[in-house]
Parts: sequence; structure tokens; C-alpha cells
Amino acid sequence: MFKKKNISLAVIRRLPRYLRYVEDLLNHDVMRISSSELSQRMGYTASQVRQDFNNFGGFGQQGYGYNTQVLYENLVKILGLDRHFKMIIAGVGNLGQALANYTNFYKKGFRLVGLFDVDPQKVGRSIRNVEIKHINKMREFIKKNDVDIGVLCVPADVAQEVANLMMEGGIKGIWNFTAKEIDVKDDVVVENVHLIDSLMVLSYRLNEKLIEKENADQK
Amino acid sequence: MFKKKNISLAVIRRLPRYLRYVEDLLNHDVMRISSSELSQRMGYTASQVRQDFNNFGGFGQQGYGYNTQVLYENLVKILGLDRHFKMIIAGVGNLGQALANYTNFYKKGFRLVGLFDVDPQKVGRSIRNVEIKHINKMREFIKKNDVDIGVLCVPADVAQEVANLMMEGGIKGIWNFTAKEIDVKDDVVVENVHLIDSLMVLSYRLNEKLIEKENADQK
Repeated sequence: MFKKKNISLAVIRRLPRYLRYVEDLLNHDVMRISSSELSQRMGYTASQVRQDFNNFGGFGQQGYGYNTQVLYENLVKILGLDRHFKMIIAGVGNLGQALANYTNFYKKGFRLVGLFDVDPQKVGRSIRNVEIKHINKMREFIKKNDVDIGVLCVPADVAQEVANLMMEGGIKGIWNFTAKEIDVKDDVVVENVHLIDSLMVLSYRLNEKLIEKENADQK
Repeated sequence: MFKKKNISLAVIRRLPRYLRYVEDLLNHDVMRISSSELSQRMGYTASQVRQDFNNFGGFGQQGYGYNTQVLYENLVKILGLDRHFKMIIAGVGNLGQALANYTNFYKKGFRLVGLFDVDPQKVGRSIRNVEIKHINKMREFIKKNDVDIGVLCVPADVAQEVANLMMEGGIKGIWNFTAKEIDVKDDVVVENVHLIDSLMVLSYRLNEKLIEKENADQK
């Protein structure tokens, strides 16, 4: 598959949204969409959509637009979702449990193969048929099962320590839900989830509305 | 405060990252930073940083860079964090409980004032001194307490119904963790959290590394 080098993270971050949207079209039996309609629905400009897809060779045809099935298959491939990654979760508190139960992940081919915690009350229990093991078993488990992704849901003060264990086991990517930025080796990929950022965007937009209202009230 | 009209969502989404970074500088007693250093550390270009801040009047001085304290105070104001929004959570499952315990939110001035669920085993219990009430009390509670933000952590099939109750109570913003897109009135702000998008970005980057490796192995 054609692919430009050094595709910006901004482009990459838009790809999942395209996928979700195109999936929705397929579910509604829409087999074709023009680039202008696609862009309008997504809130991007048509030129941005074309530019985004051109990074990967572009999938549209002049005068026809996009075949949604072709677009879908390409996005799946670009996002690596045809690979079926193996995933473990370290830290089975509320958040870890919530993530273990997110069936949407498993539909996309991410497979939960292990759960780890230090709490003796949790070790031995199961979630979705996956047994919670003690975290001192994690490194060997990753090695033996060739686990791809480690989800970090532990308290912030042990984040780096647990990430190190994951890396010693040979983990390839870390999905970090702790408020801590972690240091990783060059060949390990980290994706941080900062929920507070999303809450601050909401706050920004609420503030904007409130200012509008205050200005209107003064008139 | 000076502010351009129609600031793009991409700019807005970068603001929390700036805030987190500048906060970190302040915690390390760094009182001044050049725009080139700031941009480098954030992974943006210097011109992008300047453009981003110019939307709000710019806070730098030619040849000096940025005073971190001034930058911090401006970002807090831009993000509306000086407002202290009141927040409730609907759906006290694993995710709802995790969010109720995120002390990072409260440090930023978001105040958890209510928790709501339908489960009789949960109603009456408390998390962080906030009592879980039955969801049929939510609408009146929002009205009476002038709640700003409703966090939607309910199952997807009742997402719209619970969002409607929030809006009838006069909620101003909805932070939506369900996989469902919800319809809202024009004056209500919605911020969706799609955790799967972040996982797909991780998958994209893992896939990229794997392709590199496969190509190298073939040589």
C-alpha cells in the first residue's frame, strides 16, 4: 500500500473518526459518498479530506467519490486493525475493570489476554473469563504470550515501575491512563489518555457560551 | 481579553496540553521560556505556537519569550477554569466510579456535586462524600443546584434518554462517555470521549513499527 513518509500525528488522529463514520455508513447500506459530503458530515473541508487520504494514496475517483467498502477496508489496514493485537491490563481498579468490559475494543480485534493487580482480594477472580493474576507474574506472561499492548491503569506513583516491568517482558506499546508521563525505550510506542484535556475542552466551550450570554445580557 | 472569532477546534484541543506543560514548568520554578524551546518540547513548530497564542492576543515578548506565570494565568482564563463548574455523574458503574475518584478534576476546579444511578444497591451509598441518588431525582437536582456539566456514563441504550433528562434540568454541557452520539439542543455543549480512537492511534503506530521491522527483516 502506498504511504507517504512522516505523516503528521494530526492526520493520524483523524483516521479513527473516518473509520467510525464510514462504518456507520456501511451499517446503513450507503455504498458511495462524495468527498464534499464526507467532509461536510465530518466537519472538515473537502480539501482536507482529500489531503488526508492522499497520504495513503487516496481512495477516491474523480466524479464518483468514495466507495465506502473500499474506504473501510483501507482504513482498517492503515490503522493496523487487521493485525489482532494482544492486550493486558495492569491495575484492575474501577478504570481497569471498566476497560476490561469495553466490548467495543474486542470487536475491533484487540484481544484481552491478561489482567494484573497486587490486591490479594482481586487476584484469582475473573473478568470476561480472563483471570486476574498477581503483577509479579506479568513480565513472564508478556514474554510467553507475546503480548503487544499493555494498558497502564495503576496508581501514578508506581506507573514507571509497572511500565518498566512491561518493557522487560517485551511489550510493544503502552496505553497510559495514569496522570504520569512515562519514559520508554525507543522501540516502545506510548499513547497517553489525558481525560482532563477533554474536560478542559468542554470547559472552554462552556465558558465561550457563558461569555456570549453575559455580553448579550449587558446590551 | 482579546480573542479572535471562530477559533478552530484543533487550536482549542492543544490548549490543555499547553496548560499541563506550563504548569509543569511552574512546578519546577521555570519562570520564563522561549517560544522555540516551548514549541520543541511540545513537538509543534515555533510558528504554530505563536499562531495558537495569537488567537488570544499572544502572550510573548519579542526577544524574551514567555513569562510562564502570565502564560499560565491566561490559559486558565481562556479555558474557563476560573469559573468552577459544578458536575454530576449519571451512571455509577466502574467508569462512573473511576471518574468520581479522579482528584485531578477537582484540583482544576470542577466540583462533583451529585451522583445518580438506578441500581438500588448503589443508591444511598457515597463516593468522596457525595451520595448516590436515584436517577429520577436528577432533573430536579440539576435545576435546584444549577449544575453545569453532566457526565454520561450510562449504558449506550439509555444514553439519549438520560441526556434528555439532563437537558430538561437545564444542564449546560454533557461529557459523553457512551459509544452513542447524542442529539442535543443548540445551547448545550457536548464533548465525546471515544477511548477506542486513542487505542486505534496506538494500533496505527504499532503497525508502522511492525512494517518497518518486516521490511528490515526481508533485506
